[in-house]
Amino acid sequence: MSGFVSFVSSGPGDPELLTLKAVDRLKRADAVLYDDLSAGPILEYARDGADLVGVGKRAGRPSPRQNHVSRLLVDYAQTGARVVRLKSGDAGIFGRLEEEILALRAAGIDHEVIPGITAASAAAAAARIPLTRRLTARRLQFVTGHDVTGALPEGLNLAALADPEATTALYMGRRTFAALAARLIAAGLPPETPAMLAEGVSTPHQALSRHSLAELAAAGPTGGDAPALILFGPLAEED
Amino acid sequence: MSGFVSFVSSGPGDPELLTLKAVDRLKRADAVLYDDLSAGPILEYARDGADLVGVGKRAGRPSPRQNHVSRLLVDYAQTGARVVRLKSGDAGIFGRLEEEILALRAAGIDHEVIPGITAASAAAAAARIPLTRRLTARRLQFVTGHDVTGALPEGLNLAALADPEATTALYMGRRTFAALAARLIAAGLPPETPAMLAEGVSTPHQALSRHSLAELAAAGPTGGDAPALILFGPLAEED
Repeated sequence: MSGFVSFVSSGPGDPELLTLKAVDRLKRADAVLYDDLSAGPILEYARDGADLVGVGKRAGRPSPRQNHVSRLLVDYAQTGARVVRLKSGDAGIFGRLEEEILALRAAGIDHEVIPGITAASAAAAAARIPLTRRLTARRLQFVTGHDVTGALPEGLNLAALADPEATTALYMGRRTFAALAARLIAAGLPPETPAMLAEGVSTPHQALSRHSLAELAAAGPTGGDAPALILFGPLAEED
Repeated sequence: MSGFVSFVSSGPGDPELLTLKAVDRLKRADAVLYDDLSAGPILEYARDGADLVGVGKRAGRPSPRQNHVSRLLVDYAQTGARVVRLKSGDAGIFGRLEEEILALRAAGIDHEVIPGITAASAAAAAARIPLTRRLTARRLQFVTGHDVTGALPEGLNLAALADPEATTALYMGRRTFAALAARLIAAGLPPETPAMLAEGVSTPHQALSRHSLAELAAAGPTGGDAPALILFGPLAEED
């Protein structure tokens, strides 16, 4: 009597950016385990009577330990339930998916992964700019602004990150952006490199702002509560 | 009397991986201009009577010139039509979006961009592996296997691409993968680096196979007609 777990990517926040498959899985779930960032109106697709369980992991707030989330997931599935594990953005990108899959595998519980729209795609679409450009930005890279301790990760590849011909999407980089930008500028990335701060992308609180790398590093982004994504590189001009 | 253009990302091919917003725009369109790769069952969401116009750009086949597509888009919109420009994957990633936006902007035609699921997310989800890993693959990068001439692009950043701590997603790299792998191995990326070939992801013809970088470079992938995505780096093991 082992259930089934669907890892469902909720996208950036707008319920209209859910896939048809994500909606289907939400409607059929007995239980939905969700992160704070994937909550709100998206949960309204769950059926009446489904267990909705917040396992909040929001940047800057205390959150359940990862192994607690994995244990809860296994416990729910072992009741025979159809479980949706709702993860913001695309579950495979900075989503701690692997730890939870390993726990399910150890417990012999079958599962699937439904991909979704990652914040970088949504931010660029909101600004009506592409993430790649034919001659000037042929490489696109995704990095996170902090490791488990909250500090800038060790062992950054500066040759990759300070490349003026790549677009970089920095996830969860609000607190460490100034330190990262300083290192990239020291490594040769021009201070006037275009940068965009995208907060609360695709939600009613969405705010997009354009800066240079050096300006954004000097001005913040330090405050605010909404999830922030920072794009930098040879970004196209906005309309 | 100027219409409106929605650039709609169709995702990797499975119509169930369309977003609710994409379906809405397809249902309301007077005309849908689509690439070959975004066609098939996805077009069934268009309303009866909508103009369905193939502007096929499939790797390895002759295709309409980009400026022809842009002109067609402007022409349709200038009739006052609601136009959907359907692009496979995420429109902002290797989608030649910018050229078409510039044409619309020059003609004063309003437009929006609906993001979608890029092939790398779909391929990893199909294999039930993440694209990023907490300690071993903290950087994720997307590159294309060819430039406009069909050859491996000039000016590759080998320090970025031969980094053993990054996951790389190579789009449209079927023909040039062997040449790229040779350069990366020469630059220090271990030949035994895990690699995955993902063909026709999320379609009925989906085929996923695991190799080492050197094996995949030696064995192909040269044949086949389905779009191919190659992931390499410290990939998680599959179930």
